[in-house]
Amino acid sequence: MTSFLPDPYDRDCPTRQLLDRIGDQWTVLIVGTLGGGPLRFTEIGRRVQGISQKMLTQTLRALVRDGILERRMYAEIPPRVEYELTDLGRDLAEPLSMLAEWAKAHMGRVQEARESYDRAS
Amino acid sequence: MTSFLPDPYDRDCPTRQLLDRIGDQWTVLIVGTLGGGPLRFTEIGRRVQGISQKMLTQTLRALVRDGILERRMYAEIPPRVEYELTDLGRDLAEPLSMLAEWAKAHMGRVQEARESYDRAS
Repeated sequence: MTSFLPDPYDRDCPTRQLLDRIGDQWTVLIVGTLGGGPLRFTEIGRRVQGISQKMLTQTLRALVRDGILERRMYAEIPPRVEYELTDLGRDLAEPLSMLAEWAKAHMGRVQEARESYDRAS
Repeated sequence: MTSFLPDPYDRDCPTRQLLDRIGDQWTVLIVGTLGGGPLRFTEIGRRVQGISQKMLTQTLRALVRDGILERRMYAEIPPRVEYELTDLGRDLAEPLSMLAEWAKAHMGRVQEARESYDRAS
């Protein structure tokens, strides 16, 4: 077994693809909204405005596969399915919330920069 | 003028699109590598393995427009063009490096989760 130092700058390193997944806007918003506790599929879709059913299904499945979310089915009639953060997911929630906070805090400066750029072009 | 609370959960809020830009894998890698100081186009492309010329050009232009990078041209022969982080970009570098560090630190756990998921499916 060769030693392995993860390096997302290496195109063949799996961290590259992981980085793409965790930085995805849907991941940021879904993990963020599950920070308050487990939610059903429809409730997640209601909170993350504008996500399609297909994208929500795909993203949730990928996050469950990555060990970031857990899917729990309760044997009720009708069956209740909820998604919640795993320990790994809770650990990810912190850097992701920093990213969302950054976007909220600096949107004004970014918009000024864009207007200035567009005027100069 | 109406008051405006940025909210990336709102599909019409510009923070949604900004979040998509800053969480992009290419942004994370480019901003990360420029943390060490200004670099030329070709050097950035060399470090961020696997990025196409077209994607590098597009991403750099978008980051300059957003006020995250500055493009400096030096009147030399041949002209030298360098990209460097602005103050806003340096401020963004911190949450982005946390994201990259998270991916590096937890890749092993994510891979175990994937293997376990795939065995169960």
